[in-house]
Amino acid sequence: MKKVPHRLYLTEDQLPKQWYNLRADMKEQPDPLINSATGKPAVESDLYPVFCKELAHQEMDSETRYFDIPEEVQEMYKIYRPSPLVRAYNLEKALGTPAKIYYKFEGNNTSGSHKLNSAIAQAYYAKKQGLTSLTTETGAGQWGTALAEACAYFHLPLTVFMVKCSYEQKPFRQAIIRTFGADIIPSPSNTTEAGRKILAADPDNTGSLGTAISEAVEKAVSSDGCRYVLGSVLNQVLLHQSIIGLETKTAMEMLDEYPDIVIGCAGGGSNLGGLIAPFMQDKLTGKADPRIIAVEPASCPSLTRGKYAYDFCDTGKITPMAKMYTLGCEFKPSPNHAGGLRYHGMSPILSKLYHDGYMEAVSVEQTKVFEAATMFSKLETILPAPESAHAIRGAIDEALKCKETGEEKTILFGLTGTGYFDMTAYTAYMNGTMTDYIPSDEDLQYGFDKLPKIPGVQE
Amino acid sequence: MKKVPHRLYLTEDQLPKQWYNLRADMKEQPDPLINSATGKPAVESDLYPVFCKELAHQEMDSETRYFDIPEEVQEMYKIYRPSPLVRAYNLEKALGTPAKIYYKFEGNNTSGSHKLNSAIAQAYYAKKQGLTSLTTETGAGQWGTALAEACAYFHLPLTVFMVKCSYEQKPFRQAIIRTFGADIIPSPSNTTEAGRKILAADPDNTGSLGTAISEAVEKAVSSDGCRYVLGSVLNQVLLHQSIIGLETKTAMEMLDEYPDIVIGCAGGGSNLGGLIAPFMQDKLTGKADPRIIAVEPASCPSLTRGKYAYDFCDTGKITPMAKMYTLGCEFKPSPNHAGGLRYHGMSPILSKLYHDGYMEAVSVEQTKVFEAATMFSKLETILPAPESAHAIRGAIDEALKCKETGEEKTILFGLTGTGYFDMTAYTAYMNGTMTDYIPSDEDLQYGFDKLPKIPGVQE
Repeated sequence: MKKVPHRLYLTEDQLPKQWYNLRADMKEQPDPLINSATGKPAVESDLYPVFCKELAHQEMDSETRYFDIPEEVQEMYKIYRPSPLVRAYNLEKALGTPAKIYYKFEGNNTSGSHKLNSAIAQAYYAKKQGLTSLTTETGAGQWGTALAEACAYFHLPLTVFMVKCSYEQKPFRQAIIRTFGADIIPSPSNTTEAGRKILAADPDNTGSLGTAISEAVEKAVSSDGCRYVLGSVLNQVLLHQSIIGLETKTAMEMLDEYPDIVIGCAGGGSNLGGLIAPFMQDKLTGKADPRIIAVEPASCPSLTRGKYAYDFCDTGKITPMAKMYTLGCEFKPSPNHAGGLRYHGMSPILSKLYHDGYMEAVSVEQTKVFEAATMFSKLETILPAPESAHAIRGAIDEALKCKETGEEKTILFGLTGTGYFDMTAYTAYMNGTMTDYIPSDEDLQYGFDKLPKIPGVQE
Repeated sequence: MKKVPHRLYLTEDQLPKQWYNLRADMKEQPDPLINSATGKPAVESDLYPVFCKELAHQEMDSETRYFDIPEEVQEMYKIYRPSPLVRAYNLEKALGTPAKIYYKFEGNNTSGSHKLNSAIAQAYYAKKQGLTSLTTETGAGQWGTALAEACAYFHLPLTVFMVKCSYEQKPFRQAIIRTFGADIIPSPSNTTEAGRKILAADPDNTGSLGTAISEAVEKAVSSDGCRYVLGSVLNQVLLHQSIIGLETKTAMEMLDEYPDIVIGCAGGGSNLGGLIAPFMQDKLTGKADPRIIAVEPASCPSLTRGKYAYDFCDTGKITPMAKMYTLGCEFKPSPNHAGGLRYHGMSPILSKLYHDGYMEAVSVEQTKVFEAATMFSKLETILPAPESAHAIRGAIDEALKCKETGEEKTILFGLTGTGYFDMTAYTAYMNGTMTDYIPSDEDLQYGFDKLPKIPGVQE
């Protein structure tokens, strides 16, 4: 066994030069997107009004196993990558567990998370196609910051629709996104038809990722030279985020390590899908059999309590429909502090893998998540984002099981980002005013009842 | 010439195991501290009521060239170090300069700055001596956060006096310091004699580092098992911070590089003194002759417009007196946004080196600093702290001179930290409401007139 440093950084030469497309190794593919206008499976060109062409291609290509990372994208990756693989010695010691705990830390960049990995790729392809502006939505603000950084780098104007409750909880997120030169609008807003409709029905609506997506897509399709980009859920995003897992696997190989358990927080699936990619490849191809665990908030439990069904990706029902675990696009998530996990659906790739038994999922309550976050920060000197802390909670729970059984398992989790803009949430936790919210079966039924009907596919 | 990666991280094995004490190579020593009660040079034991013994020893020892870094301190360093040496390729390109620009980035930890390097050492020695609590002051909040992290790690209760105007500008800093378990009090406060005196004379006083130091020292000396710790100015702090320069020099050697110019922001001198340490050693011992430049705020220009004189380190005049460049401990700095540079004096070591011609100093206005910060963030995807951005401004100005002369100089600067808690300042800059403040000669004279009189030393 090699001596394991606290932090292992790959060298620049070791950085991946290709992304890995998990679909190429899946025995069964996720069901195709359905064009909501025709009720038929979408083809690549159906996506061109919304996504730039190369990204539409990546979205639909389930066969190409590796995609070259463009030179320009590699150049920007090198500004903040590699991210470290960290051995959580202090956490292990404090828990008294025989397990070895590793985490891949993606928070060492100004966006504060892994989101930059896909933002750069998406901004690059848009610029290359000659587009003149982009729109997006953001929940917690990490994706919005990441895309603002990428657009500043590639000189592309950007409008960000930010979920209103996050916008209000995180005043400084607005400032940082504006520092990078982007416009930011709290959603629902009266700048779009989708936003006006929602506000007319419910003037106090605090927003959701689904609503913000509707607004951003509407603005993109109704503006010249403008496209929409999304930080999670999509196949293209999982492709770009595979860099997390590829780096992690290389680093673990250098340490002669392999994870028995891989754990990630799950909102739309961007980090989880990226982190697990090469380990899931091993599982799909029979080379190894790690347990893979998604940790989601109990307040928005798409995998653990959702339905595997076709649904819209947005609340305004203007996107194509995807087969995924969903709470229904009209499900109203509580204003939980992990804004980045407050999404009604889950990546179609991850949904399919979960459905086929390749992954597990657990849900956790936010006070338990902040308990883990606070413990972790004192031991590892990183204040985690609430989203990331879901994975910490999951890792701690697995490490404590190892303590009971005495098993020396190797646990790997994704620490997606930092919580420096989440101090309102930490304050609520410290002051004892944070509450947990678990939707009732009736709450969920409300969303399920409104799932779309698609003749011949989903009645 | 070796290929230079964007970011170079040393391996854990390469991390320094000793700190370097710059005084051991100085031909002339800084003048001794003077005990304000006796008017005589202070001896080590004079410091015991304020500092723990090992730190008092480090403060006074001008002969030992290298101090071993205790194992326990090395262990905590490994949680967040090494920090990367970054080649600012994008900044170079945007400036069109032939200069090569490197920066040592110390912001990749939750304290957001280099301050953690000394906080860990100070908390460790306090714990080792059996102390049961610590007090400190913080300006921008980075030192307070760093010490809160270190005290959480070593299980030591901590009270932080935070300069009131920073406390109000940065609400989330309070939350993060409390998350790590420390108490935080805005200064001046009515919890100390020093604070009450200042508030009685000026109820609207927005505080200063000098005042916060008075309060923290008073609380420490009046509480059992309690000592005071300070994040800058002191010799011991420069000793601990030498790890910045030592790592940097090793990394540059790996690249076959040596800086022609070394630039750091200067408040009390902690980062600057640490970054330059091994390069100043080369200069003092005749091995090399880099230019060394301190960049300070025009609003608080201790080196460029101060007097080299004995002064108190605090406003309440309860500390020993140090010979340093000072604006007078009663100087009232404007509420400039670089709270960490708003200090009336400068490290006695750096003051002496500057006085003896080994260093240069420039002062810059804050709007120019934020212009540099905003430009840098878009190019290098790091949002810098306002303090750190002073060094960026200095580096850009030197790189632009190289553009004029065509010289391919190698410029190294210290990027001490991130500005995630400084968004109020960035917002003021973006909104055009930020103003510059340059003290008049009369403002400075006010401070100079109140410098202490010491019979036989300073009349």
